[in-house]
Amino acid sequence: MPEIPIVENILDANDQLAARIRIEFDSAGLLALNLMASPGGGKTSVILKTIEALKDDVRIGVIDGDVVPLDLEKIAEMGIPVSLINTGGNCHLDANMVYSALPSLDLNALDLLIIENVGNLICPAAFSLGVHYDVVIASVPEGDDKPYKYPAMFKGADVLLLNKMDLEDYMGFRVDYFRHGVEVLNPGLTFFPISCRTGDGFDAWLDWLRTAIKAYSNGQETTP
Amino acid sequence: MPEIPIVENILDANDQLAARIRIEFDSAGLLALNLMASPGGGKTSVILKTIEALKDDVRIGVIDGDVVPLDLEKIAEMGIPVSLINTGGNCHLDANMVYSALPSLDLNALDLLIIENVGNLICPAAFSLGVHYDVVIASVPEGDDKPYKYPAMFKGADVLLLNKMDLEDYMGFRVDYFRHGVEVLNPGLTFFPISCRTGDGFDAWLDWLRTAIKAYSNGQETTP
Repeated sequence: MPEIPIVENILDANDQLAARIRIEFDSAGLLALNLMASPGGGKTSVILKTIEALKDDVRIGVIDGDVVPLDLEKIAEMGIPVSLINTGGNCHLDANMVYSALPSLDLNALDLLIIENVGNLICPAAFSLGVHYDVVIASVPEGDDKPYKYPAMFKGADVLLLNKMDLEDYMGFRVDYFRHGVEVLNPGLTFFPISCRTGDGFDAWLDWLRTAIKAYSNGQETTP
Repeated sequence: MPEIPIVENILDANDQLAARIRIEFDSAGLLALNLMASPGGGKTSVILKTIEALKDDVRIGVIDGDVVPLDLEKIAEMGIPVSLINTGGNCHLDANMVYSALPSLDLNALDLLIIENVGNLICPAAFSLGVHYDVVIASVPEGDDKPYKYPAMFKGADVLLLNKMDLEDYMGFRVDYFRHGVEVLNPGLTFFPISCRTGDGFDAWLDWLRTAIKAYSNGQETTP
């Protein structure tokens, strides 16, 4: 009787494809980020502000998982190569979607590839995309209890941005309580409190990003 | 050969169970709401403020889908019967979870049952819970483009609250643009702009709620 192959675990299959994607990123010598947040947490604002600051020195590309190209139009207007993964209402990106989108961008012409995931604090955490860093954006108006209530997302993050810090006082946001929740899940996580509106804290994020781009461009590092 | 039954569609199975749940709600003469929002959109704040306003006249119960009982503890402290569906990190509630939770509450002793869904603007929209009204809470800091980017959630809503209206001017939120996006998807949707912080607009929501509770308590209405 012929042997019937069984894919044991859909997440295993995803991880295998993610590993192939990582090889493509490393061959191209680019830094790849997977940007995740709640709806309206500030993914697009962070991307736009990052592009504005780095575009003269860094060759940036953006892949966006969305149902409409509203955000990508703003990014494309800045002269940035973009690619839309039309998720058709799906709740996350997976490695297969990203792998399918890669031929639409010239990876060798990029230093930094930002993948903007679907606005969702749960499902995207389960799917590796082959990037070097999973970057989570939390935002002050969402409340300081989010690490306690969405642990998988904060546990899996490599870098955490806390956006909309200009609203810290107005919202009565307790940064210590928030950070304690994060620290329990993910000790020592790289953390940047920022405000896309005022620009506060953004330089520290950009410095970290410049260093990471440099590290991956010379091919010496291949894993975070 | 014995016939093998096949469940054609998991969503059909969910809908069948949702219909059974609806019968339980109608037999008990209570109004049931499914409250959905992004993480930090204000589900718990709306519930707490609604309880505060109605608890002397209305017998309220709350079922919460969460990984921790942080929110439910605040609600229980107000003397409200509560039940936690520990979602274990799942991205939505479904009819089976709600059906399993029903025996933990005395439905006949309730006029209003609020089911607080998982914080997620995508997945919960696909699963009917047998309630009378699907209530969606959007919030101003999330941005005015949300109906355009999360259409299924706004299309499926029976009632829409727009929370954190106190931040309208600060965030430059365009209510007209937001409402236009909603109107295209869901013409004539019942809409309440509110602020849990200032209380603005909350009376209109409470008036609507009192009328709905009354309608379902007399058993004359069984579908919205």
